[in-house]
Amino acid sequence: MRYKRYKNELDYSYTPGMAPTVELINRRPDRALAVYAHPDYKPGTGANIFDICKAAGVQCETNAKIFNIIADKENIFVAGVFGKFFSPLAQTLPHVVFVNPGDAGNLGANLRTCLAFGLRDIAIITPGADVFSPKTVRASMGAVFHYNVALFASYDEYATAFPGHDKYFFTPGGETALGDVSGTGDARVSLVFGNEATGLPDEILRRGRRVRIPHSDAVDSLNLSVAVGISVSQFYELGYWRLEVGG
Amino acid sequence: MRYKRYKNELDYSYTPGMAPTVELINRRPDRALAVYAHPDYKPGTGANIFDICKAAGVQCETNAKIFNIIADKENIFVAGVFGKFFSPLAQTLPHVVFVNPGDAGNLGANLRTCLAFGLRDIAIITPGADVFSPKTVRASMGAVFHYNVALFASYDEYATAFPGHDKYFFTPGGETALGDVSGTGDARVSLVFGNEATGLPDEILRRGRRVRIPHSDAVDSLNLSVAVGISVSQFYELGYWRLEVGG
Repeated sequence: MRYKRYKNELDYSYTPGMAPTVELINRRPDRALAVYAHPDYKPGTGANIFDICKAAGVQCETNAKIFNIIADKENIFVAGVFGKFFSPLAQTLPHVVFVNPGDAGNLGANLRTCLAFGLRDIAIITPGADVFSPKTVRASMGAVFHYNVALFASYDEYATAFPGHDKYFFTPGGETALGDVSGTGDARVSLVFGNEATGLPDEILRRGRRVRIPHSDAVDSLNLSVAVGISVSQFYELGYWRLEVGG
Repeated sequence: MRYKRYKNELDYSYTPGMAPTVELINRRPDRALAVYAHPDYKPGTGANIFDICKAAGVQCETNAKIFNIIADKENIFVAGVFGKFFSPLAQTLPHVVFVNPGDAGNLGANLRTCLAFGLRDIAIITPGADVFSPKTVRASMGAVFHYNVALFASYDEYATAFPGHDKYFFTPGGETALGDVSGTGDARVSLVFGNEATGLPDEILRRGRRVRIPHSDAVDSLNLSVAVGISVSQFYELGYWRLEVGG
């Protein structure tokens, strides 16, 4: 077998299921290595994977074995293989920065939320969940293929690369309430989120503007995915950037 | 054994784990029937469940068997049993209304988010996920014990009971953008959310103000839990109600 069970060290990964596979083909056909349909695959009322691949010039073949590798016990009938892609982040656009994200499913869901509000550049501070793991790709429903993705070994490495970006750290104890942040008209902002369980480390929190989402103390802290949604949608509403509708 | 494996038909349910059990004891000691510690339970650096129960006058005993019933394969060392509670919703406070919620875990997470923004009255339009199932209770981290909970067999039954509440329906095609909703100073609002997969049915959408959360069309729709967080936090920011801090 040409492809192996997924490991972080591989330079390729998989798109388990129809939705992320279609996003791969549409958004990153240059990175699509192959697409597979299970022998039991039946096109539904929606698009046919063979037609989509043909239109995009991506190879698609029927194969059962590859599904043992990609999808343990899940019922998946379409999957793709793609070469991982890393690219420099835009110097003039907003970034979302995940510091040591803990869970691939959460990371994928957050990628999808950030894409919904028009973000296209993501930095991951390692160690953390693997942004290209099949689980992340699946939870993102293919949103990951819309992004410039860059990994940094430390927050400092990221901050040094983007000195012109205003950094906002989201943290329960932040001294600025989210509702008090005002727009600056400069799209060079970095929205920085910590780990689901441990948040942002103190040594990072010392370096920037700390923003809290005011909430009742009946709850210790907001779920990270909810905090990301509220924060990113608010910065979008403040006019820091525009949605690239249709983009 | 006195207690049975959980089913919707039972008039009691379980709190799997320390956090929801402590919320049960603190918020609804009147509904706490029993608390159990597993023989392998070891108090950590935090509070001791025996001390918490003693202070609240709730019976706590060590028992291994009950955990076979409550927690299939999860590592849980503390659990409670509680009588389900339903109560009329407040006529003068905001409500969150979940129409046919699909998933107990999502419902629990949404209860927690709504509590974080100060809501205390929840209506569930059945059929839908079971608000008192152990899975909901656990995902809510005990937030459910802060609520007045009421079930309604239809949206109409709910709307008839609360004619003075302004109803807001959250739906991707809503004609009012969330950012264009303005505060009225009247806390009698109903924030109505549909099923994760199917949204709100058309026959309900005809009856009220339809609100959309503007987002890029790179994503079909927002995840329900993100939509709930953004919507509820925005209504709170508009001053529809105040957080009962410490409440």
